[in-house]
Amino acid sequence: MSYNLLKGKKGIIFGALDENSIAWKTAERVHEEGGTFVLTNAPIAMRMGQIKELAQKTGSEIIPADATSEEDLNNLISQSIEILDGKLDFVLHSIGMSINVRKGQHYTDQNYDFTAKGWDVSALSFHKVLQGLYKADAMNPWGSIVALTYMAAQRVFPDYNDMADNKAYLESIARSFGYFFGKEKKVRVNTISQSPTPTTAGQGVKGFDGFISYADKMSPLGNATAQDCADYTVSLFSDMTKMVTMQNLYHDGGFSNMGVSQEIMEKFSK
Amino acid sequence: MSYNLLKGKKGIIFGALDENSIAWKTAERVHEEGGTFVLTNAPIAMRMGQIKELAQKTGSEIIPADATSEEDLNNLISQSIEILDGKLDFVLHSIGMSINVRKGQHYTDQNYDFTAKGWDVSALSFHKVLQGLYKADAMNPWGSIVALTYMAAQRVFPDYNDMADNKAYLESIARSFGYFFGKEKKVRVNTISQSPTPTTAGQGVKGFDGFISYADKMSPLGNATAQDCADYTVSLFSDMTKMVTMQNLYHDGGFSNMGVSQEIMEKFSK
Amino acid sequence: MSYNLLKGKKGIIFGALDENSIAWKTAERVHEEGGTFVLTNAPIAMRMGQIKELAQKTGSEIIPADATSEEDLNNLISQSIEILDGKLDFVLHSIGMSINVRKGQHYTDQNYDFTAKGWDVSALSFHKVLQGLYKADAMNPWGSIVALTYMAAQRVFPDYNDMADNKAYLESIARSFGYFFGKEKKVRVNTISQSPTPTTAGQGVKGFDGFISYADKMSPLGNATAQDCADYTVSLFSDMTKMVTMQNLYHDGGFSNMGVSQEIMEKFSK
Amino acid sequence: MSYNLLKGKKGIIFGALDENSIAWKTAERVHEEGGTFVLTNAPIAMRMGQIKELAQKTGSEIIPADATSEEDLNNLISQSIEILDGKLDFVLHSIGMSINVRKGQHYTDQNYDFTAKGWDVSALSFHKVLQGLYKADAMNPWGSIVALTYMAAQRVFPDYNDMADNKAYLESIARSFGYFFGKEKKVRVNTISQSPTPTTAGQGVKGFDGFISYADKMSPLGNATAQDCADYTVSLFSDMTKMVTMQNLYHDGGFSNMGVSQEIMEKFSK
Repeated sequence: MSYNLLKGKKGIIFGALDENSIAWKTAERVHEEGGTFVLTNAPIAMRMGQIKELAQKTGSEIIPADATSEEDLNNLISQSIEILDGKLDFVLHSIGMSINVRKGQHYTDQNYDFTAKGWDVSALSFHKVLQGLYKADAMNPWGSIVALTYMAAQRVFPDYNDMADNKAYLESIARSFGYFFGKEKKVRVNTISQSPTPTTAGQGVKGFDGFISYADKMSPLGNATAQDCADYTVSLFSDMTKMVTMQNLYHDGGFSNMGVSQEIMEKFSK
Repeated sequence: MSYNLLKGKKGIIFGALDENSIAWKTAERVHEEGGTFVLTNAPIAMRMGQIKELAQKTGSEIIPADATSEEDLNNLISQSIEILDGKLDFVLHSIGMSINVRKGQHYTDQNYDFTAKGWDVSALSFHKVLQGLYKADAMNPWGSIVALTYMAAQRVFPDYNDMADNKAYLESIARSFGYFFGKEKKVRVNTISQSPTPTTAGQGVKGFDGFISYADKMSPLGNATAQDCADYTVSLFSDMTKMVTMQNLYHDGGFSNMGVSQEIMEKFSK
Repeated sequence: MSYNLLKGKKGIIFGALDENSIAWKTAERVHEEGGTFVLTNAPIAMRMGQIKELAQKTGSEIIPADATSEEDLNNLISQSIEILDGKLDFVLHSIGMSINVRKGQHYTDQNYDFTAKGWDVSALSFHKVLQGLYKADAMNPWGSIVALTYMAAQRVFPDYNDMADNKAYLESIARSFGYFFGKEKKVRVNTISQSPTPTTAGQGVKGFDGFISYADKMSPLGNATAQDCADYTVSLFSDMTKMVTMQNLYHDGGFSNMGVSQEIMEKFSK
Repeated sequence: MSYNLLKGKKGIIFGALDENSIAWKTAERVHEEGGTFVLTNAPIAMRMGQIKELAQKTGSEIIPADATSEEDLNNLISQSIEILDGKLDFVLHSIGMSINVRKGQHYTDQNYDFTAKGWDVSALSFHKVLQGLYKADAMNPWGSIVALTYMAAQRVFPDYNDMADNKAYLESIARSFGYFFGKEKKVRVNTISQSPTPTTAGQGVKGFDGFISYADKMSPLGNATAQDCADYTVSLFSDMTKMVTMQNLYHDGGFSNMGVSQEIMEKFSK
């Protein structure tokens, strides 16, 4: 189904890895809604993914870029404007990785080189994207920039490790840069705090399946899927939400405002 | 402009008083987006308003109802389902009034009869609407219920008086009832925390013009207008936001996450 | 153990019912720390309690007062100042009751007469206490007023019923009145959001034991007890916390910032 | 005045630079309350400061340590336990510096080498301190660890630059590590979000005097001073607050819950 919500809008989508990715689903929905875009991912991630298939399906070009490299980002931005023949209306940042998690370092036993690298990829990369866009004056007025985050930035999920702190930093960037982008360019910047989602990336986290099930039972509407998140992201890219900025928006079936659900209590009382 | 976002959807809109009302603008936008609805307001408010004009323009019927009366609400709900020929997909609650404010009673010198009446009208009425809908099983799955609120529920605006406490209660209802409505009926319940808006009702608050200007200078995108709010409400009624529930959503050009803006500091430094 | 933290300080303590009450434990600790006070409770509650024993133990007088009656409160305040021979330095509000809970009315099936009465007792009573103190100019500069609350004001605990909404209103009063009390009288107003506590009152809530156990397993330090809360309240009455005002302070062993604990996940994975 | 609140307690205090420092005032108050401690600061900062004077006054030893160096921190911890003849009961982290601010790089024009260095010093250092203490099992049960932060972590203050994001990361560490420290060691971890304070460090921020005055007029009790903060920190180190953990505690005269004050509106209306 399509409403033409993004007809004529142009953008960049970071982080489509495979068909489980939120960014992948978002790219498909943006395409359905009439938006055009450039797809990008880290050169190393792209070799693993099926991003070319997505590009064909959506009539998009792919520009590899390491989101920690200012040079790569500047190149991505200038090329995108050329390819799309105009400034940008939307950007999706869906990038995150903890090397401490991958290497099995517990949160209380971090390797700080891993921590620094994970912070650069998962959190600072969002500032680099924003700064690149801002300095190049690459966004149209009333453009919309969204980054994906998780509620571990506010509350503790023990296995989420240093990604919790990275997401807190990322959300702070959305506020801090959102101020300047709003004031100077009339561009909004928000984060979506999404339900735990069984993406290929998410599956790296220990005990993820059990956690998905827990979150589903805690959420009155159940977990939001990647497809649901694509819909919501489209609404934030559209002109229906022009005055929403600097917000962290929970898209989680209600989990974030639950203390405990009846289902959890029942499971617990047994 | 229309996207047909609400094609085939049916609902009830409370609180359209005159063309400055957020509810009025929302009714117009919902109509443009293909939704059909019943308009309602307190009998006493309707005599003052131009609601008939809105009804004609949008092809709607008007059913007067005192939102503090369970009987009136039950009648409204059953009649609406009959008129619209089906269960409801959306409801907007835009009702609020402080008698302490109207009568000039300071927050530290409340008349508690006024306080109780204001609480009933502004806050408890939302529970009554929800309970009426819930017991009548009046909402379709994935329906969306929205109430308007203001950030005074979280932070102090000295002239907002007991409406601050009423809005805190209202937002709590959205969470509490949102849980049951989500779990049992797959219906979402949210509040929109809107910029100060120069509606006819808002103008009753002391020093409102100065405050509107202050909020505008604090907000990186400026104040959200009633028209902007109508757009945002439509997005929350649409299928693009199905997994958002129990949230208080700031629609305020960024005000809610500002500590201070450069414009305020400049004004202040002079 | 005593530090003399409240030496020379005078106050009123509402809500000591029996030795399980937080207010009871607080009265004992305040006494140990050198504070003097008047005890008060609703006439009807006092007949059931052992408050006279507490009064003897702490050398206090008892003044019955219905906290929903402005007349009773004014009398309480003026008598307390006389008995204590001076203005007040601290006040504890520990009052709450839901008739809907008592009568077994589900949150989605409220009797609104019960709702109004519960709101008056549990929430508005705090405003009445504050307004009484404010108008009588009964507080010394740097005095401290504390009300007890629960996290259901922020997040849903399905069995907490309309007390969730009442606590949200109460916390809003702490902010709203805290502004005027701070500005005009240099008096701070805060709420303590306490772990679920097995008081005689708390035990009325359905499934309370299971919930206590759940909260304990979710909280890294376990649930805070009534005794712990008494200590914390003393710290808020003392001069060590003079610049803390308008805050809702979680005293809960960390529960409020937990997403999920390992113990809950283990229980859940089984 | 002393209550002997910290009699017999031992700890480490980071960041006492000169007599304007919050850490300096805290050291004095901790000493008055019967606590003993080791003072530490970066070797480079210590040369500028008058820390020796403080050490003499409080009978403390000084151990220089670069808080970004795991080796330095491990040495500091083991030496402190030796000097104090026992494990630790309290730790104050009062460390922060933005090179982007110092070098005049605007938030939208960051030098990412500066950003990374500032993050390491201001935010990650807190993790390094916690991890060092945790791995060395250096804290006694019911010990208390406090880090200082600022509300820019939640709301935008345009001149606060990348320190806002660093403080968001720091506060997230307090939650994330607070979970493990609470669960495994019964140690609490909190942050104090302090009013803007005219320390020597704070004075580096552009327009700081005007901002101090703004915050003072916004806060019903006025700005909290460094001396007030020392008192509050002592309360958090004491046994009166044993069940408070993973919290970000506003110590700001009420600023954090203000939307606007009458004084600001008056200034604004002129």
